[in-house]
Amino acid sequence: MRLVVVGGVAAGLSAASRARRVDGSLEIVVLEKGPRISYGACGLPYLIEGQATSIDDLTVYTPDVFERERNIRIRTGAEVTALRRPQREVVLRDGERIHYDKLVWAAGARPERVDHPRSFCLHTSDDAARLEEFLKTRRPRTAAVIGGGYIGLEMAGALRARGLAVTLHEAGPHLLHRDDAELTARLVKHLELNRVETLLQSPVASPGDLNADLVLLATGLRPNVEALADAGVALGRSGAIRVDDRMETNLSGIFAAGDCAETNHIVTGRPVWIPLGTTANKMGRVAGSNAAGRRERFDGVAGTSIVRVMGLGVATTGLSLSQAQREGFQPIAARVTAPDKPKYFRGRRVSVELIADRATRRLLGGSVIGEEGVVGRINVIAAALAARMKAEDFAGLDLAYSPPFSTAMDPLLIAAQQLLKLLD
Amino acid sequence: MRLVVVGGVAAGLSAASRARRVDGSLEIVVLEKGPRISYGACGLPYLIEGQATSIDDLTVYTPDVFERERNIRIRTGAEVTALRRPQREVVLRDGERIHYDKLVWAAGARPERVDHPRSFCLHTSDDAARLEEFLKTRRPRTAAVIGGGYIGLEMAGALRARGLAVTLHEAGPHLLHRDDAELTARLVKHLELNRVETLLQSPVASPGDLNADLVLLATGLRPNVEALADAGVALGRSGAIRVDDRMETNLSGIFAAGDCAETNHIVTGRPVWIPLGTTANKMGRVAGSNAAGRRERFDGVAGTSIVRVMGLGVATTGLSLSQAQREGFQPIAARVTAPDKPKYFRGRRVSVELIADRATRRLLGGSVIGEEGVVGRINVIAAALAARMKAEDFAGLDLAYSPPFSTAMDPLLIAAQQLLKLLD
Repeated sequence: MRLVVVGGVAAGLSAASRARRVDGSLEIVVLEKGPRISYGACGLPYLIEGQATSIDDLTVYTPDVFERERNIRIRTGAEVTALRRPQREVVLRDGERIHYDKLVWAAGARPERVDHPRSFCLHTSDDAARLEEFLKTRRPRTAAVIGGGYIGLEMAGALRARGLAVTLHEAGPHLLHRDDAELTARLVKHLELNRVETLLQSPVASPGDLNADLVLLATGLRPNVEALADAGVALGRSGAIRVDDRMETNLSGIFAAGDCAETNHIVTGRPVWIPLGTTANKMGRVAGSNAAGRRERFDGVAGTSIVRVMGLGVATTGLSLSQAQREGFQPIAARVTAPDKPKYFRGRRVSVELIADRATRRLLGGSVIGEEGVVGRINVIAAALAARMKAEDFAGLDLAYSPPFSTAMDPLLIAAQQLLKLLD
Repeated sequence: MRLVVVGGVAAGLSAASRARRVDGSLEIVVLEKGPRISYGACGLPYLIEGQATSIDDLTVYTPDVFERERNIRIRTGAEVTALRRPQREVVLRDGERIHYDKLVWAAGARPERVDHPRSFCLHTSDDAARLEEFLKTRRPRTAAVIGGGYIGLEMAGALRARGLAVTLHEAGPHLLHRDDAELTARLVKHLELNRVETLLQSPVASPGDLNADLVLLATGLRPNVEALADAGVALGRSGAIRVDDRMETNLSGIFAAGDCAETNHIVTGRPVWIPLGTTANKMGRVAGSNAAGRRERFDGVAGTSIVRVMGLGVATTGLSLSQAQREGFQPIAARVTAPDKPKYFRGRRVSVELIADRATRRLLGGSVIGEEGVVGRINVIAAALAARMKAEDFAGLDLAYSPPFSTAMDPLLIAAQQLLKLLD
């Protein structure tokens, strides 16, 4: 029995590793189109920023670890361009065919690219190397960042840190793909304060026309699904691969995981496509487990995400108020700003938003913004969403208190009290 | 209608404030035996350490705010010594009688005191002032701290920070009241590393006999219940006041909240007495609300707590492995240590322990220890306990990931994966 895994980053390697633990005798081959496996692509902006000093800082495992310790064969430079389904074969770019019994498709997603000498993406380690080279040799003084999602905001910060004057162009009315006017306003203020000129509703037709020494394209991703789709694998409405809660596609024995696949949203119960690294790991693990013969489920995601924008932590989970309205809820939002610690421990103000449904009092989403204490708090909200907690359940949470760490009444609980008042 | 609240710190003031919001016409009187209201007693060790510079740093509200903004009468120096129940009167030390229609007893707890010139407690602002005076004028060089609970450990750190040689004496085999040998061993190592000599199973018969310039007594608290108990209010097995989930005692119209009262443990469902400030606030709010005529419930506590011990954060929630065994569960524990962030963001190792029941797979407790990233993680476990999550639910949590904040596979999720392996 041979398991072929297409993709050697988060989802693919998680799938391969889990499959090996489930079945020690399975033959496992990982096909990665790039030159490297297992690097944390999420760290690339910090490589440009100078926080990480080499691509090796971002590399979690080398192929050696997989081959020697886990008996997983890794082939880099192996791009799968087609599937021959009756024969159960993947076809590589050079025509080579590889037989599979089970297949995990974890081919990720790709950014929009523009072929222009001053235009850059930041999706692979090669992208980072090319940008670094340009920064060092050409010494650009101005940059236009196109796209106000995670990568766009992180790169605006990274390029400011490298001393460039930065303008951020976002085609839509919101930043961070979050339909939340207050969050966007707060971010715009912070960006402008850090001298990143921020233009909303500002689509850029042709990056080459921009008057900037460097153009960074961060306009979002498209899932790598073509070879699978051509072979009859069904896609969801998002364009990513449709899977069931075992990560299996409509074709038996073909699984998909990571940035190329949809998953369930735990608040709405509907399929969503939210490509993120930590989700990819979890999906990959479940896909690998099932491909190796176990039965395991993946419950879905809350869409939890966090980004650091020039010192400010911005985290969201679940639905925004507008999203919740569109999904048919009767949402209400409580927003509070309070210190995360006592003054004598240099507490900083942290803003918490909690959204609940008026009819059922169930929590639907939330956001946390601040210089400190953001990640822990968004994770508590994410846990509450997974547990389908009501506002009163959340208000009763027994959170830890001691002056070096928090206030007696945590901002999360102040927000919950505020929410209860609004629900009454 | 007059509501009398006995106690003007966390629980009492929460009760009074909530009662005012529920009923604008209620007459509300708060009787506080000490000279001040509303100071964060939890901050007293940090006043000695020098982190906070004056008792005012610890004061949240002055009586003025309550009297003018909330129409709540505050009387300091008013110690209630007895209850005349048929007449519905509280009796003050000087004999004055005050009528009540509803009563919230939030009289707190008191430490063991020894009358000796070199012996100190740290329970009130007066205690802190007396200790500060002694430190400044007598310049002690050695200190014995008696008691290895929160106050004992915080004070060991505070006195080390003031330059004293410190010996810690704990009568039992464990620190932090947590029946957890590994946690105690880890703490002892950390204390010794910071040159606090730590003696377990080392009861001190007579503090005056110790060869130390200063003796700090931190041997735990006793609930202030005598006046209520004499009037027929029932106590629980812990010796603290027994209340229902509305915070009402066995006597109708008499409520109790805060450090003097028991509450339910959300894991065992049984009454416990865990006196902590943040719990006191929540219990007070529910007591005040019900005393003012609403119906509100308090679900109980997980016993979540956190303490900083000379730079190390130590947090626990729910049951320890041994406690869970005694409570009749079949517990199993997963312990992992992993970096809280990538190396290039100076990630520090954080240890996570998760405990689950073999039979039901339900989470029962956990602990988190580390220099960073402790409070957020223990709060996620506390939320999971409140939601009665199973190990697999916890492993599926959609926690936030971005390199400045976390690793793609959070230590919490690594521990959950470890737990799943043990449960299989």
